[in-house]
Amino acid sequence: MNKIKVGIVGGTGYTGVELLRLLVNHPQVQIQATSSRTEAGRQVADLFPNLRGHIDLAFTEPTQANFPECDVVFFATPNGTAMQTVPNLLKAGVKIIDLAADFRIKDLAVWQHWYGMEHACPELVDEAIYGLPEVNKAEIAKARLVANPGCYPTAVQLGFLPLLEANLIDPQHLIADAKSGVSGAGRKASVGTLMGEVGESFKAYNVSGHRHWPEICQGLNLHSSQPVGLTFVPHLVPMIRGIEATLYATTLTDVSLEEIQALFIQRYQNEPFVDVLPLNSHPETRNVRGVNTCQLAIHRPQDGKTIVVLSVIDNLVKGAAGQAIQNMNIMFGLAETMGLRGVGLLP
Amino acid sequence: MNKIKVGIVGGTGYTGVELLRLLVNHPQVQIQATSSRTEAGRQVADLFPNLRGHIDLAFTEPTQANFPECDVVFFATPNGTAMQTVPNLLKAGVKIIDLAADFRIKDLAVWQHWYGMEHACPELVDEAIYGLPEVNKAEIAKARLVANPGCYPTAVQLGFLPLLEANLIDPQHLIADAKSGVSGAGRKASVGTLMGEVGESFKAYNVSGHRHWPEICQGLNLHSSQPVGLTFVPHLVPMIRGIEATLYATTLTDVSLEEIQALFIQRYQNEPFVDVLPLNSHPETRNVRGVNTCQLAIHRPQDGKTIVVLSVIDNLVKGAAGQAIQNMNIMFGLAETMGLRGVGLLP
Amino acid sequence: MNKIKVGIVGGTGYTGVELLRLLVNHPQVQIQATSSRTEAGRQVADLFPNLRGHIDLAFTEPTQANFPECDVVFFATPNGTAMQTVPNLLKAGVKIIDLAADFRIKDLAVWQHWYGMEHACPELVDEAIYGLPEVNKAEIAKARLVANPGCYPTAVQLGFLPLLEANLIDPQHLIADAKSGVSGAGRKASVGTLMGEVGESFKAYNVSGHRHWPEICQGLNLHSSQPVGLTFVPHLVPMIRGIEATLYATTLTDVSLEEIQALFIQRYQNEPFVDVLPLNSHPETRNVRGVNTCQLAIHRPQDGKTIVVLSVIDNLVKGAAGQAIQNMNIMFGLAETMGLRGVGLLP
Amino acid sequence: MNKIKVGIVGGTGYTGVELLRLLVNHPQVQIQATSSRTEAGRQVADLFPNLRGHIDLAFTEPTQANFPECDVVFFATPNGTAMQTVPNLLKAGVKIIDLAADFRIKDLAVWQHWYGMEHACPELVDEAIYGLPEVNKAEIAKARLVANPGCYPTAVQLGFLPLLEANLIDPQHLIADAKSGVSGAGRKASVGTLMGEVGESFKAYNVSGHRHWPEICQGLNLHSSQPVGLTFVPHLVPMIRGIEATLYATTLTDVSLEEIQALFIQRYQNEPFVDVLPLNSHPETRNVRGVNTCQLAIHRPQDGKTIVVLSVIDNLVKGAAGQAIQNMNIMFGLAETMGLRGVGLLP
Repeated sequence: MNKIKVGIVGGTGYTGVELLRLLVNHPQVQIQATSSRTEAGRQVADLFPNLRGHIDLAFTEPTQANFPECDVVFFATPNGTAMQTVPNLLKAGVKIIDLAADFRIKDLAVWQHWYGMEHACPELVDEAIYGLPEVNKAEIAKARLVANPGCYPTAVQLGFLPLLEANLIDPQHLIADAKSGVSGAGRKASVGTLMGEVGESFKAYNVSGHRHWPEICQGLNLHSSQPVGLTFVPHLVPMIRGIEATLYATTLTDVSLEEIQALFIQRYQNEPFVDVLPLNSHPETRNVRGVNTCQLAIHRPQDGKTIVVLSVIDNLVKGAAGQAIQNMNIMFGLAETMGLRGVGLLP
Repeated sequence: MNKIKVGIVGGTGYTGVELLRLLVNHPQVQIQATSSRTEAGRQVADLFPNLRGHIDLAFTEPTQANFPECDVVFFATPNGTAMQTVPNLLKAGVKIIDLAADFRIKDLAVWQHWYGMEHACPELVDEAIYGLPEVNKAEIAKARLVANPGCYPTAVQLGFLPLLEANLIDPQHLIADAKSGVSGAGRKASVGTLMGEVGESFKAYNVSGHRHWPEICQGLNLHSSQPVGLTFVPHLVPMIRGIEATLYATTLTDVSLEEIQALFIQRYQNEPFVDVLPLNSHPETRNVRGVNTCQLAIHRPQDGKTIVVLSVIDNLVKGAAGQAIQNMNIMFGLAETMGLRGVGLLP
Repeated sequence: MNKIKVGIVGGTGYTGVELLRLLVNHPQVQIQATSSRTEAGRQVADLFPNLRGHIDLAFTEPTQANFPECDVVFFATPNGTAMQTVPNLLKAGVKIIDLAADFRIKDLAVWQHWYGMEHACPELVDEAIYGLPEVNKAEIAKARLVANPGCYPTAVQLGFLPLLEANLIDPQHLIADAKSGVSGAGRKASVGTLMGEVGESFKAYNVSGHRHWPEICQGLNLHSSQPVGLTFVPHLVPMIRGIEATLYATTLTDVSLEEIQALFIQRYQNEPFVDVLPLNSHPETRNVRGVNTCQLAIHRPQDGKTIVVLSVIDNLVKGAAGQAIQNMNIMFGLAETMGLRGVGLLP
Repeated sequence: MNKIKVGIVGGTGYTGVELLRLLVNHPQVQIQATSSRTEAGRQVADLFPNLRGHIDLAFTEPTQANFPECDVVFFATPNGTAMQTVPNLLKAGVKIIDLAADFRIKDLAVWQHWYGMEHACPELVDEAIYGLPEVNKAEIAKARLVANPGCYPTAVQLGFLPLLEANLIDPQHLIADAKSGVSGAGRKASVGTLMGEVGESFKAYNVSGHRHWPEICQGLNLHSSQPVGLTFVPHLVPMIRGIEATLYATTLTDVSLEEIQALFIQRYQNEPFVDVLPLNSHPETRNVRGVNTCQLAIHRPQDGKTIVVLSVIDNLVKGAAGQAIQNMNIMFGLAETMGLRGVGLLP
C-alpha cells in the first residue's frame, strides 16, 4: 500500500507538534508539508528539538505548501482558519480533519454566537462528520471532512453517553466539573498562561459560558430522550497535559452500581481507546500521558442517587492530535490503533 | 496586657510549621514550647530554616513540655492524639485548639465509624465548640475547647451557608467538587504524595467517602430546613497550597443572580476573612496564598437553576493554622485579625 | 514622623506587584500613585486580587500621576524607561530607586553594548549609587538616585565578596552557575515563558552572554586585586520564585573550611538580610520565599582547592522589590528592616 | 528469531516501571516475570495503570520467579541487592544488567566506602562491564554481566569525554554542576521527596560528596592523561524527569569553538543516542523526555578559556532503563536502537 501523504496546516502550536510526534512513527504516513506563516523556512526540528532525527522538513508558507497533492490535510489552526481553504482542498480531492471548531457545531447561529464570526462555508457544515469514533465510526469511514472534537467535549461525552443512551439518568441535571492542563490554551504569547500566572495555583474559568458547552450539549442531545440541561465548569490545573472531568448525574431508576459498571464495559468493549477501570478506581491524568486512551471510572457515593463518572484523557492526544489520527486511520481503512499504541509516560 | 503563652503539640508537620510562621510575628503571643517525639532536642529553625532569626526554641519531648503552664495549646497532631491529653490540660486551666478531627463530630458513632477508633474522652465532645468563626463566634469567645474545622469543610461550608440559611436552594442535591494542593496530605513519609507520584498529574480520590463529608454535612444540617444530601468529591492538584471548591446547588425560587450576590455580601459584611468578589469573578488559589482569607464568587451559568459558588482558601491558613489563630484571638478577646493581616503571595 | 510618600512607575509587572505587597504593610509608607499605561483607570486590587482590602488605588497614566510630589519613586519598568524621566523627578526633589538596569553600569559603552540603546542621561550614571546595601550602605544613605541591583548579581556578589575581599581565591577563575524561577522573566506576553514551554523542564540559557555578567564583574572588580575572570551561566527552573547560585572558586592559600566559615560570619554579622548557614547546610529557595534574606552556605568538597558557595534569594524580594525597600529605608533613615520582617513561606 | 526472555527484579520502582514501559513495545522481547516482595500477587497494570492493555502479568515473589530460565535479568533494585543473587543466575547461564551500583566501581575499597557495605561477590566486579555503550560497545557485546551507569555519570561523562580523549582540557579542574528531577530519588516513602518538600523550590544537595562522584572519576580517568580533579555538585529540580549537567573545563590549547564542535560531532557520529546540537544551542530536558537520547551543546563564553558543555538526558531512560535496554540490544546482537525510537514528549 502506498503511504498516506499528509499535510499539516499550522504546525507550530501544541496540536501541531503533537501531530508531528505521533505521525513520524506512523508506519503508513508520509508527511509532505507542514505550514506556518511565522516560521516558514525554519527546520521543524529546530523549533521542536524533540523531533531531531525524526523529521527532515522545514515549515512552508501556507500558500507555498503542496497541500492539494496530499491525501489528507490536518488543520491545527486557530478557529476560523480552516473554513477559508477547506472548500478548495475538498474540490482537489483532499480529505480534511479539522482540529479546530469550524465544523463542529451544526447550528450556524449557535456557532456564530460562540465563535463571534460569520461562517465562510456554511454549506459544508452539514456534510462534516463529528469525529468522535466511539459514536460515529461508520460515518467517519466514509467522510471527506471530519470535525475533530474539542478536548473537554471528548472527555465529557465519553463519560455521559452510556448513561444517556440507556436512559438511566435525568438529562436535565447534568454537571461536568472539568479540569485541564495549560497546554489546552495553546502555544501563543499570552500573559494569562505564563508560568508565573498559572503555576502553583488553581482556578475555575469561563463559568458563565465556555465554547465547549454547546458542543457537548449537541453531542449529548443526540442520545438523550429530551434536551440536556448541562452545567459545565472548566478549571485550569498547574500542569501541562491532561484533562480530568468529574461528571455528576442523578439516576432515574433503581439500577445498581454493578449494573452501571457492566453497562459501561459493554458499551466500550469494542473501543480500543476507551478503558473502563475496575470499580473503586480513581484514574489519574498521568495514566494516559502522551497516549490516545480515555480512562473511565464509575462511583456511587453513599449508595445514593448521584452517579459520579471520572474521565481522564490527554488533552493533546485523545483530546486533539491522537483522536485526529484515529479518525485518519478510520477514513483510510487502516487499523484504528495504527501508530497509536504507545504507553502512557508514568511517572 | 501579658502575652499569651502558647504551646504547640506536634510542631513538625505542615500545620505546625504554619502555626509557627504566623505566631512568631503575632504581637500578643509568646511561644513557650513546641513538641515533637521524633525531633526532640533539635532547634526548630534547623528543621525549618525559614524560621531562622525568628525563633530560638528547640523541639521538646511531649512529656517534657510545660504545656500545663500555657494559656493555650494548639494540637497539630494526627487524629486521635489530642483526645489523649486534652482532659488533663483542660483541668490545668489551659485552653485548647485542636487542629485535628478529635472533637469535630458530635455524633460519636459517626466519628468512630469514619476515624476507626474509640473516642478517649467522649464527655468533652459535646462541650467542644466547632471553630468556624463565621458561624460560631460568640461560642468560640467563651470556649475552653475549640475543634478547628477541616480544610475542605471550611471552604465548602462558607460557600453553601448563605444559600442554605436563606432557604434558597434544594438541600437534597448539593454537590461540592473540591480540589486541594498536596500539603493537605501532611508531612509524613508516603509514596502517595511523592512529587514523582503527584506532580504533573490530577486525580479525584476517596470518591466513595472522605472523612470531611460527615463534618460538612453536620455543619450544613444546622442551617438547613431538612437534612442535606451532599455529594463531595475531593481531588488532588499538583501544587503545594490551596483549596478550590466548586459548589453546585439548585435554586428553589426565582431569585436573581444579583440578589444572591447581595445576600452573600450582606452575610459576610462583618467577617474580616470572607471576601465576596464582584460578579463574574474567578478566584485563584494564589490570591490567598499564605493568608487567612476565603474568597467567594457566585455564578449562574446560562441563567439556569444551577447556582455555582467558587470558594478558595489556603488549606494551611484559613483551612488550618490561620483559622486556629483567628479562634485564639476570639477566645482571648483580641482583635480577630491580629497577626493575620498578611497579603497573599502573588505570584 | 510623616509617612514617606511613595510612587511606583510600572505597577503591573511582578516587581511592581511585589513592591505593592510589601509596601501596603510598611508602617512608614503611604502609596500615592502607581502608574500603568495599559491598565490606567483599573483598580490595583482588581488586577491583583491578593491586594483586595489592602489598597484602594487605581492605576494612573504615567503622565497623570503626581510623582513629582512623592518623596521617592520606584521604577519597576523595562530597561530604558526610567532614564527618560528620572532627571526631571530629581530636579523636583524626588528620590529615585530604579529596579531596572538604567543606572547599574558605570561604563557607558558597556551599558550601551549590552542594552542596545543610547543612554538618555549619561551625566546621572556616575552619581547613581549601586544599591547593594551590604557593600554601599553609607553611600545609599546619602543618595538621590539608587540603581537597585539585578537578581542574579545580588545572589552572586553576596556569595563571592567575602572571598575576594579577603584575597583568598583566584579572581581569574570564578564560576557562577545560577538558577532562577520564571518570574525573573517578568509578566509580559511571551511564548518562551508559557507554562507549556517551561513547566517540567530545565535548561541553561544565554550561556554566551547575559546582561547580568558585566554587572557582576563590575561589582566584583571593586573588591578584587585584579580583574575577575567570571563564567556566568544562568538556568531556568520550573518554579515561580527563587534564585540559587552555586559558586565555584579556587583557593590561593591553605585556609581551612572553618576559617572561611568564620570569615563569612564575620563579614555579614551586622547585615540583617544575609544569613550564613552552619557548615554542611544546603539552602533551599523556599527558605526565603517572599522574604528579603539571602542564605549562604560554604562547602569544600573532598577538602580540595575548590570552594563552593551556595547562595539563595527570592528573586522578587532580595533580588528586586525587597532590596529596593531596604534601600528606601536606608535613604530615609529608617530601620533597615522596617516592613521586611516576614517569614519565608514554607512549604 | 526467538524472543528474548526477560526478567525484572524489583519492578515497582521508577526504573522498574520504565523498563516495563519500554519493553512491552520492544519487538524482540517477551517479559517472563517481574518480581516484588511487597506487591507479589498484584497485577502490574493495577499498580501502574499506564500499562493496562499492554501487559498481563502479576508481580511475583523474587524466590518464586523463573529468573533462571530467562535469557537476561534486569535488576532494578536498591544497591546491594543484585550482588546477592547474580552469581547463581550467571551460573544458570542468564545474562545480567544491573541498574543499581553493585558492579560499577572497580576499586572495592572505594565501593565499600561510598556504599557502606561489604561486597557479596567481589570476584565478579572485575568481570562486569561498565555499560556506557558510547565507550564500551565491543565489551558490552560480549558481556555476561553489565553494570548500567548511574544517571549523573551518564550525562557528565558523555559531555567531558571528547575533551579529555583529545587532551584539550586541564583534567585537574573539572566542574560538573548537575541538576536532576525528583524521580532520580526513587519511588520509596520519604519525607525528603514529598511534593510539599521539593515542589516550587530548588537546592543543591550532597555537596560534600555524592556516590556518583567516584563513578564519574573512574570513567573519566580511563581517558585522561592524569587523574581528574572533579568537583561535582548535584541539585534537585522541582520536576519529575530529566537531568541537565552544565560542565566547565579550562582549555589547554588554542583550539577554536568550531574545532571543538567538530570534535564532538565526529566523536559521536556513529552513536545513535548522542546528539550534538548546533552551536549556540541550549538543550532543554523536555527535548528528551521519555527517550534514550543525550543532547549536548558546546559554548565558550566571552571566547575565554572556559569551555561550557550542556548535557541533557532523561534520568529514567538514558540514565537508567533506556540505556539498560540499549545494552541488552548490544548483548544480544540486535539493532542498538530497537524498541528505543520514541520521540520526546514535548510539551
